[in-house]
Amino acid sequence: MEWIQGGICAPLGFEAAAAHCGVKTHNKAKRDVMVIKSEVMASAAALFTKNLVQAAPIAVTREHLADGHAQALVANSGLANACAPNGRAHAQTTCETAASLMGLDANDIIVASTGVIGQELNIDAITTGLPGIVDSLERSPQASDDAAHAIMTTDTHTKEVACSFEIAGATVRMGAIAKGSGMIHPNMGTMFCFVTTDAAISPELAREALMEANRTSFSRITVDGDTSTNDTFALMANGLAKNEPVTSKGSAYDEFVSALTELCQQIARQMAADGEGAHHLMTCTVTGAADEATAETLAKSVVGSTLTKAAIYGCDANWGRVLCALGYSGASFDPERVTMSFASSAGAIEVCRDGVGLAFDEDKAKKILEEPEVSINVSVGDGTGEATCWGCDITHEYISINGDYRS
Amino acid sequence: MEWIQGGICAPLGFEAAAAHCGVKTHNKAKRDVMVIKSEVMASAAALFTKNLVQAAPIAVTREHLADGHAQALVANSGLANACAPNGRAHAQTTCETAASLMGLDANDIIVASTGVIGQELNIDAITTGLPGIVDSLERSPQASDDAAHAIMTTDTHTKEVACSFEIAGATVRMGAIAKGSGMIHPNMGTMFCFVTTDAAISPELAREALMEANRTSFSRITVDGDTSTNDTFALMANGLAKNEPVTSKGSAYDEFVSALTELCQQIARQMAADGEGAHHLMTCTVTGAADEATAETLAKSVVGSTLTKAAIYGCDANWGRVLCALGYSGASFDPERVTMSFASSAGAIEVCRDGVGLAFDEDKAKKILEEPEVSINVSVGDGTGEATCWGCDITHEYISINGDYRS
Repeated sequence: MEWIQGGICAPLGFEAAAAHCGVKTHNKAKRDVMVIKSEVMASAAALFTKNLVQAAPIAVTREHLADGHAQALVANSGLANACAPNGRAHAQTTCETAASLMGLDANDIIVASTGVIGQELNIDAITTGLPGIVDSLERSPQASDDAAHAIMTTDTHTKEVACSFEIAGATVRMGAIAKGSGMIHPNMGTMFCFVTTDAAISPELAREALMEANRTSFSRITVDGDTSTNDTFALMANGLAKNEPVTSKGSAYDEFVSALTELCQQIARQMAADGEGAHHLMTCTVTGAADEATAETLAKSVVGSTLTKAAIYGCDANWGRVLCALGYSGASFDPERVTMSFASSAGAIEVCRDGVGLAFDEDKAKKILEEPEVSINVSVGDGTGEATCWGCDITHEYISINGDYRS
Repeated sequence: MEWIQGGICAPLGFEAAAAHCGVKTHNKAKRDVMVIKSEVMASAAALFTKNLVQAAPIAVTREHLADGHAQALVANSGLANACAPNGRAHAQTTCETAASLMGLDANDIIVASTGVIGQELNIDAITTGLPGIVDSLERSPQASDDAAHAIMTTDTHTKEVACSFEIAGATVRMGAIAKGSGMIHPNMGTMFCFVTTDAAISPELAREALMEANRTSFSRITVDGDTSTNDTFALMANGLAKNEPVTSKGSAYDEFVSALTELCQQIARQMAADGEGAHHLMTCTVTGAADEATAETLAKSVVGSTLTKAAIYGCDANWGRVLCALGYSGASFDPERVTMSFASSAGAIEVCRDGVGLAFDEDKAKKILEEPEVSINVSVGDGTGEATCWGCDITHEYISINGDYRS
């Protein structure tokens, strides 16, 4: 697998465009609506938030993907169209308008919204703006970048990645744009990740691959423990790479899943690192657990612990808070067999062995934790299960971002 | 039931004292060790943290309470004696020293520690300081207040309360001191609550009463989602009120439970209001749920939501975040039957009806949320279950307190 440029426009046959349409009324410089279009019909699948309260676009997209196909995607930022008047009607109008402009069927459109909950979507802004966006669709790195900008909320930078890899000897490309930032929590917190690929794969296996990749990427990050109403992780595979279509499990499918997983982990790390107000990307790796699920539960509890996040913000090797978070995770382990170290590009330091604190060089620990990417490595003495989860520290900026009136 | 003065010294036969012994080396002005002593042997029971990682004093206290009796309690702040070298030995030495000074058996001592995890308890400071504390034991409001001060960590004020009530015609008294602040989470976050009473009650029923009161008080507050290693909620009932001993369930037991519950709810509210850095006490009441457990799950999710806490800090009636927190709580309800209002001493305002946002007066909402105690009232349309949970907002001060080096 090789990282390449071009984002969602790296795969053959995918165009994108975005513009400011006025959904974001308070920031007229920001693009707020985007479209991705495939030249041909694509196998398509999506995963959604597990929140019981789900935005209207999710219900509409679910129906549109029932046949396993889609050819375009429309998304807006600014308003979430969740718990809002006329939510379903506005999501449908968005699809119908876009479909009509592109000569497609509304049932082949994926729709997604992110932003403030509970306010009516400014549908006129979208229907008025869509013709210009559709007119400017093109396959270019800039178009992918514009689309990535249009879905940002409190993200400080775009999240975009692309790769090429081989499926049974044929070169295929895969690209993604994403947004993260707040309301990020295991099992898909508030996030969008839109993946395009020119691989040929059946809708059923595209969906399975999505679930497999999600399990060890987006389901292993947390920013603030809040799971949003709008999360959408969607994939369109248009087959233009002309590989032998992946229609059953086997090495070709494994190659697809492996690339998708690596792509999603890359995006997940970017989301955690760009968590609202974050100064540090926090990675927790747990090894030696009874099984992978136990390791994941332990690691998630650490990256989700508010007190641990505050300690990392303070560059404080307060490992007691980490041990405490392991202890209330709900997973079973022997506290007296826990060994822990902190690490970063500045080095590594062991702080606890067999559940008891070690005397360690506080200055060295502080230097390690001053790096922007820090790792908390925990070993429990129960088996071979391991897992890595990602999160970020909690900072004054997080409080400012979310304490500001109606952010 | 009547609120009275005197804290833990309000009940007959309870003395207290506290001093700075040097466990807190960085703050020499603060009392850090305290003793409560009953004139006679008391029925005693305690509940502890559910964290898998438990401090050494908890293991020792568990053994000492196996017979259902205790006559004194020793607690320190500054160091948690959790995951620390020689933890058990130091907890035992604390009990033995205190017992010997008071002419008691070490098995009749309850011991508790709170503070930094992982550092060895400065046992010499405690053994050297205890004689002076035991010498100064007295039954006075000041002694109770001193003891309350000695268990404070990042609390900004003492938590102390006392009441008198009748059990089958006899007047009995009950008092409590407590500490809360950080690491507070449902199912007893980091907290101490030490209750004294001169009621006569069997050890078995004292323990049952403790569990009943805990269920609707300390198990319904959250500050930051972190459950500590040291929580201890202990009760000593010495029988000096000479009421007919409560040895079976019935109206006398119910009177005891009712008073204990009200006392604990009072303390729980104080803990939430004094959460680290808190500006607001947040109360969430859910009504109309399928049952009480569902209502509790929903209300807990709201007071535990970081984004809701940040909104309340910003005096922002961002009810979408509340609905979102209800949605990811894990409880089942129909989002389209949710009605919500915000209230405080400045008034009340409905913000959402049947799952859809209402147009409301933002200025009025802001005024309501600027009060120090705010309520989020949620009604779901499924039944008669209701529950109230308490929490606090998350603020810049929380980040400063916990991001400071080794707070």
